Amino acid sequence: MSTVHNKKIVLNKRPDGNVSPDCWKLIQEDMDVDLKPGEFIVKVMYISVDPAMRGWINDVESYMPAVQIDETMRALGLAEVIESKNDSFAKNDILSGMFGVQKFCKLNSAYAIEKIDITKPSNVDKSMYLSILGMPGMTAYFGLMDVAKIQSGDTVLISGAAGAVGSIAGQIAKIKGCNVVGIAGGELKCRYLVEELGFDSAIDYKNVKDLNNAIASSCPNGVDVFFDNVGGAALDAALNHINPKARVTICGAISQYNASGLNIRAEIDYIPILFKSARLEGFVVLDYYSRYHEGVSQLSEWIQQGKIKSKEDIRQGIDHFGEYFKLLFDGGNFGKLILEP
Amino acid sequence: MSTVHNKKIVLNKRPDGNVSPDCWKLIQEDMDVDLKPGEFIVKVMYISVDPAMRGWINDVESYMPAVQIDETMRALGLAEVIESKNDSFAKNDILSGMFGVQKFCKLNSAYAIEKIDITKPSNVDKSMYLSILGMPGMTAYFGLMDVAKIQSGDTVLISGAAGAVGSIAGQIAKIKGCNVVGIAGGELKCRYLVEELGFDSAIDYKNVKDLNNAIASSCPNGVDVFFDNVGGAALDAALNHINPKARVTICGAISQYNASGLNIRAEIDYIPILFKSARLEGFVVLDYYSRYHEGVSQLSEWIQQGKIKSKEDIRQGIDHFGEYFKLLFDGGNFGKLILEP
Repeated sequence: MSTVHNKKIVLNKRPDGNVSPDCWKLIQEDMDVDLKPGEFIVKVMYISVDPAMRGWINDVESYMPAVQIDETMRALGLAEVIESKNDSFAKNDILSGMFGVQKFCKLNSAYAIEKIDITKPSNVDKSMYLSILGMPGMTAYFGLMDVAKIQSGDTVLISGAAGAVGSIAGQIAKIKGCNVVGIAGGELKCRYLVEELGFDSAIDYKNVKDLNNAIASSCPNGVDVFFDNVGGAALDAALNHINPKARVTICGAISQYNASGLNIRAEIDYIPILFKSARLEGFVVLDYYSRYHEGVSQLSEWIQQGKIKSKEDIRQGIDHFGEYFKLLFDGGNFGKLILEP
Repeated sequence: MSTVHNKKIVLNKRPDGNVSPDCWKLIQEDMDVDLKPGEFIVKVMYISVDPAMRGWINDVESYMPAVQIDETMRALGLAEVIESKNDSFAKNDILSGMFGVQKFCKLNSAYAIEKIDITKPSNVDKSMYLSILGMPGMTAYFGLMDVAKIQSGDTVLISGAAGAVGSIAGQIAKIKGCNVVGIAGGELKCRYLVEELGFDSAIDYKNVKDLNNAIASSCPNGVDVFFDNVGGAALDAALNHINPKARVTICGAISQYNASGLNIRAEIDYIPILFKSARLEGFVVLDYYSRYHEGVSQLSEWIQQGKIKSKEDIRQGIDHFGEYFKLLFDGGNFGKLILEP
């Protein structure tokens, strides 16, 4: 019986508020590679490290069941098939799917797994299938096109604008003829948004006295679309500046995910939504799973044309997963956070 | 020069919180009925007394400018033309429009004024043009059909369900095959909703220990549509029970309108909207002004067919306007509140 040596991160205990290092446990084990019919085994190349993972470790069912104690931490990833007795997948196929925070993964179902044709587009790094051509890209694309329904001329304000989703969202909104303002933390990120990605302006929330006033000066014609990855104070401030019929698209609420207790509560004043005949709408990108091919096709085309850029922040070593995960919540990453296990 | 003797209510001072009697002033004056070309004068038959009027007397521009001190209080009404030098309107025409809280009104523009054909439908009281065939009916109709987009089988929860808008909304949702639950204050109103209007059940918010639990038991399959006239605690409780893709339609927030200070703030926890891919949307019925004829036509048909009932609470005497207005905020009216000046 032949085996591979696997390393994986399991949930050791549930966090109360911030995720401390002892919430995770590194496990090493030999994984049997003799496969039953239908089974296949992959070597994980890249692991996607995402804010949504914070929600999955609370003992609350949201759009997915909670990860259980001693269960391998759930994560999206990109992987290569190393052995297969499954008719859908052959050795050397590159797949994206939920492979967990581990070096190898044995599966027996093709559910929610996509085969990647890495030969096209030609100028794409594999890691982009976890960023612009993966979940963050799809979140930005369907969130703006389908949920916010952006129109040319709209003023689009984006929180978490230098993050994996926000940076792609801003570029899509520019391609679509919008006036785009980003909120990000630090001068470096703000300059990157304007100078590299073509945002019209950026608000450095770490260095403004009053976010409310900053939004007012950056959006003199008001906000038609607020694409919110952060929540909390950013959302409450943005609502003061929405235009009639504004669309407030709630993509995430990273400022709130580490709230103590099982149930996140985050309060906003909703009265502007009434008085402006506006709409606040949440979505999870999995709602659009069946239409990912549309988004991948459009974003690939824009990459080929040089109209859109993707930035990945790739870190090494599964042993350091806990440290890397924390970067998401203090703004320590710059670009889509990816772990090479 | 001939005149009529007018009585009118003007704004005497702005309220801080609740509207005290000295916020209003009764003025008596003679009104000249010798008209210039384009002018016409109406005798007001019925004045609509609405929660929205509370917002118009704050010194804040929302979807309409604020009523100014010493200005005649703005109000919708039904009126009969008594003299006219305007080509659009003839003596004895019945009109609906913004005629203010007064007995007579002189105008020179047809803006937002509708001529009512009171001969059809035949079984309609004139006062219904201020309730089911007026603004409250249009609010219920377009709010459910266009904003909430109700579907047969939806569970529709309605706050302020015995009010002018809520009672019509519930009956429309029943006609459309929904499961309808109303929230109202007092046993009398709750029995009326179920026994007279055909609601599936009603929650008496004045006599339940915990509104949250009451919603859970009345809506065992969750809430697909929350049609909210009340806001505050009712909204916060309802959000705990929304289903995936729920539509929370914000039609009003009467529980908040008397808040102290110029700017109403009302906080809700918006996180369920994110996790349930739901939508919270505000609207003002004036957005649908150009489509009122659709709503009037459909609601008239349902009245003719005996499928829908309208209840008006008609009070007499413009001198008592201040007392009547307060009824709206303590649940003292039962049916659409109308003043016969």
